[in-house]
Amino acid sequence: MGKEEPLQALVDYLAVDMQACNHVIMDRMQSSVPLVSQLAAHLIVAGGKRLRPLLTLASARLCGYEKDSADHITRHVRLAACIEFLHTATLLHDDVVDESMLRRGTESANAVFGNSASVLVGDFLFSRAFQIMTEDGSLEVMRIISKASATIAEGEILQMTVQNDLSTSISRYFEVIHGKTAALFAASCRVGAIVANQSRQHELALESFGTNLGMAFQLVDDALDYSAKQEELGKTIGDDFREGKITYPILIAYEKSTPVEKEFWQRVIQDGKQEKGDLKQALILIRKYNVIEETLKEAMVFANKASSALDVFPESELHTILKNIANYTVHRHF
Amino acid sequence: MGKEEPLQALVDYLAVDMQACNHVIMDRMQSSVPLVSQLAAHLIVAGGKRLRPLLTLASARLCGYEKDSADHITRHVRLAACIEFLHTATLLHDDVVDESMLRRGTESANAVFGNSASVLVGDFLFSRAFQIMTEDGSLEVMRIISKASATIAEGEILQMTVQNDLSTSISRYFEVIHGKTAALFAASCRVGAIVANQSRQHELALESFGTNLGMAFQLVDDALDYSAKQEELGKTIGDDFREGKITYPILIAYEKSTPVEKEFWQRVIQDGKQEKGDLKQALILIRKYNVIEETLKEAMVFANKASSALDVFPESELHTILKNIANYTVHRHF
Repeated sequence: MGKEEPLQALVDYLAVDMQACNHVIMDRMQSSVPLVSQLAAHLIVAGGKRLRPLLTLASARLCGYEKDSADHITRHVRLAACIEFLHTATLLHDDVVDESMLRRGTESANAVFGNSASVLVGDFLFSRAFQIMTEDGSLEVMRIISKASATIAEGEILQMTVQNDLSTSISRYFEVIHGKTAALFAASCRVGAIVANQSRQHELALESFGTNLGMAFQLVDDALDYSAKQEELGKTIGDDFREGKITYPILIAYEKSTPVEKEFWQRVIQDGKQEKGDLKQALILIRKYNVIEETLKEAMVFANKASSALDVFPESELHTILKNIANYTVHRHF
Repeated sequence: MGKEEPLQALVDYLAVDMQACNHVIMDRMQSSVPLVSQLAAHLIVAGGKRLRPLLTLASARLCGYEKDSADHITRHVRLAACIEFLHTATLLHDDVVDESMLRRGTESANAVFGNSASVLVGDFLFSRAFQIMTEDGSLEVMRIISKASATIAEGEILQMTVQNDLSTSISRYFEVIHGKTAALFAASCRVGAIVANQSRQHELALESFGTNLGMAFQLVDDALDYSAKQEELGKTIGDDFREGKITYPILIAYEKSTPVEKEFWQRVIQDGKQEKGDLKQALILIRKYNVIEETLKEAMVFANKASSALDVFPESELHTILKNIANYTVHRHF
């Protein structure tokens, strides 16, 4: 099986739902202020995998959700769009925070429209996400998503707090990625179960699937930034390195390094004093200590937990696809 | 009557409610991530008038709201805190957008903690506001506040769009200040009526009070930036001028100016080419055309509408205080 296939299988399985979701997204990003729609379109229309809304749609379907009202937009579709708005808002703000000039292979919104517009359109999309939730009307959904939203902000702030700090513990790193990534994955899945009126057990199983999938996803993302394979494929690597971001690969490499090598990490990460050739040296140390493999091994632990969490559901085509997705998350691009 | 007295009278009248609200604010801005609480405290503890939560508390009381549950935190107190969080979030983002280094007479959060932290803590407070609303549990309240929140972002973006543009119409300016200021004033008041289970008529009356009060408030704010009186009091003026912000005073002054004077405005506002002495020249033109008086006259129209909107309520001490507040909004600092 090709490496992209599990995700493509999910996209194919949910094609009708996703099309409906895209309609809601296009419709609800409209504003009487043209710049709002233009900037939102820059990011939303450009695409991305739409992984989070796919998880909401998939979770609802896995729980046997069928349209339950005369409303022409079904609940899972509406909430999937809400999740995508929330995610897009965080991306817009992240790019301002990281001063990123690229996003999804094209110029980032802040590079094109400026930081101010990115901050404010993020706020608009955030508000719109809450308006959509209000239309859905479930207090339980609102409680879960607003909590996830606060957790995302806390995760991002924690990440900023530990930047350049090589004494950061692995458990602190896990706290960061739980906040910045896994919390929204978890919420995306859980609300799918809620609209389908599933049992608490199934709701928590999907939440666990989302959490663990998100942890695996972020670990792999952090590994990819130091992957020679990525570089061979012509992709940019070393962004995290240049920012002095504290990620799993850095923590593992630092831990295993000799005192002299530790001095190198202290200079480039802790003190942020980087020179030409430093990334190359970092990659040499990362290869020397099998750091990518270690990171992927850790990611696989989470991916396996994600997969096991789905065992409470009966076998089905979608069930298989989702289990494959967990595995694929770790093996993508390798 | 001294000029500060109507606001002080409101603060005194609502002292017990406001103390409870401050407790909720202090309690709910806590986070496991220390930087979140520190930055929030920088802005929230420093104070400010707390005008918006006061409006929620006052509106509820004007509608005869009494504690209606065994909950030790009453609904109007909880929602007043929610409104203050939302307002604080927008202030944090505004200061990033405007690159302001001062806020409430002290260093702004972005000056102390940086733009990134301000963006992310704004997001946290925004999320927390929605969590508090979810705890309140009224879909109607959520609908009103989430809509106001989207309108605020649109107003801010519209303001950015018309920056430096002297061809902006007065009605477009009103659209900007309705979004950036009046929408939240309106929502603050309206939710007070909702928790008190008042009639639709009273709910809309309070919304109208808030809208018009907010419009008056922002017009006066925009006048103060060009007020010689303010300068005599040692306050900074000319911030809007330096940013090329399109406000009522600028639009009126430009409209009345001779062709030669118009060229001045075009250079300093449209082209943003400002030299030493330009603010002084702007103030001369503003005095020549009675622009401050015109702006305050317009503000008074809104203030009178705000006051009249309260006529559906029976006379009471609080009723009188709120009517005085409307008047005071225009006469403050003059």
